[in-house]
Amino acid sequence: MSLELLSSNKTFGGWHKQYQHVSATLKCAMRFAIYLPPATADGAKVPVLYWLSGLTCTDENFMQKAGAFRAAAELGIAIVAPDTSPRGEGVADDPDGAYDLGLGAGFYVNATQAPWAEHYQMYDYVLQELPELIEQHFPVSSQRSVSGHSMGGHGALVLALNNPERFSSVSAFSPIANPVNCPWGQKAFKAYLGEDRDTWRAYDATELMGQGGSTPALVDQGEGDNFLTEQLKPEALKAAADKSGYPLTLRLQPGYDHSYYFIASFIDDHLRFHAQHLHLHSA
Amino acid sequence: MSLELLSSNKTFGGWHKQYQHVSATLKCAMRFAIYLPPATADGAKVPVLYWLSGLTCTDENFMQKAGAFRAAAELGIAIVAPDTSPRGEGVADDPDGAYDLGLGAGFYVNATQAPWAEHYQMYDYVLQELPELIEQHFPVSSQRSVSGHSMGGHGALVLALNNPERFSSVSAFSPIANPVNCPWGQKAFKAYLGEDRDTWRAYDATELMGQGGSTPALVDQGEGDNFLTEQLKPEALKAAADKSGYPLTLRLQPGYDHSYYFIASFIDDHLRFHAQHLHLHSA
Repeated sequence: MSLELLSSNKTFGGWHKQYQHVSATLKCAMRFAIYLPPATADGAKVPVLYWLSGLTCTDENFMQKAGAFRAAAELGIAIVAPDTSPRGEGVADDPDGAYDLGLGAGFYVNATQAPWAEHYQMYDYVLQELPELIEQHFPVSSQRSVSGHSMGGHGALVLALNNPERFSSVSAFSPIANPVNCPWGQKAFKAYLGEDRDTWRAYDATELMGQGGSTPALVDQGEGDNFLTEQLKPEALKAAADKSGYPLTLRLQPGYDHSYYFIASFIDDHLRFHAQHLHLHSA
Repeated sequence: MSLELLSSNKTFGGWHKQYQHVSATLKCAMRFAIYLPPATADGAKVPVLYWLSGLTCTDENFMQKAGAFRAAAELGIAIVAPDTSPRGEGVADDPDGAYDLGLGAGFYVNATQAPWAEHYQMYDYVLQELPELIEQHFPVSSQRSVSGHSMGGHGALVLALNNPERFSSVSAFSPIANPVNCPWGQKAFKAYLGEDRDTWRAYDATELMGQGGSTPALVDQGEGDNFLTEQLKPEALKAAADKSGYPLTLRLQPGYDHSYYFIASFIDDHLRFHAQHLHLHSA
């Protein structure tokens, strides 16, 4: 697996870099970004936080807007941000160009339906191929945590809940917490997974959290978020956690909306949360 | 002077807001953004840092990418980011669509030449009209500092050096420090101010700093900046300051480039620098 360096910027004593590689899982060229904290300059292997972005995003939204590098540099955590869907010629897109299906809207599932199944295998890409690539090419340990926003918050929760051995902790901002019961999730799952709703449940954080688990989870949700009631449904996630005794911390933040202005306000808390669990596990 | 609110986001306990107003100076509608720190919610009047952006930017680049709100919230400083040129129908632009002349490239001067003079009066707009508007409509004091990046670093230095009674301190990232001696500056000044180079000197930070002054100035410059040698020329500014005894702190930062990844890395230092001088003056 070879990597092509696309850009490189020094920031907070470390390096932000964008790479392209050909993904065997997705059968297309994919871009991702990585932040390498200053500790890696001394040869140290650092843990990795995977960040999954929301609808319409690429690797750039988080890296440019979240303000995460100061804390990542201090704590000694690398951050990896993949794209939100396969891309390129021959990759299916919504014929109407909808923002919530197709390009930029992979929903971190393995699609089973035509025309999506050929390339839309974001679950396996983020779970398997990307970490293998990262751990082969960069000075990182195999300690991983995962976080994300909106569609990416859904992805982070689902990946961590299904794979407790792979992630030390999980967090999310404004996640689509119960996609089987909201318009965004139903539209995407019907297209990617088909009409049989039983196949949807493995990708629903509320369903999974209701089954229990022990991976520490932190969720921040703005109370001024326009998508809160119809699409996000954190109260369903909380009820499932309460029922199963899952260690979920849900924080409702008065006045905050769905934007990166919200994420930036609390990203330091999330990095400290992950650092605590990453360092405990690697000690 | 009336203001139209365009957007509003809670961030770091305060508010980022975008407004539009009709500028009498520029004879067009102008957008700006303001960050109001949490202290203003209690009715406190806070000082203001004006941020002037670089070529091609609007108010959004700094507000989305600089990561300045955490420190601004802690220190109790409002930040105001104007656009980088007049905009809209009837506003002259470069006929070839160049990025370094016309729209997005006002260079913070008062143009005297056709077709620019009609709208391109950014110096007066930023010096007079905008602060009047801000101090009329928001809970801020008349304590002001100014900072900026690249073309905006030039603007910040020139405004502060020409108007020591208006600004408590000035800082810049990667400023165009000697525009009369670099391609960007010569192209813009020739267009906006005409062939007589004597008229350029009031807009050249190196020329002005060589005349002395006492407004504290902090400049950060990345040594990995592609524009360093041909366009920015911080060494000329430093030589002028050394000659006149001007209180300039110039920091060369190894490895950093011209991007917001560089600005974000050191913006906290700039906010603390301004806070120190703003609070001294208001005490």
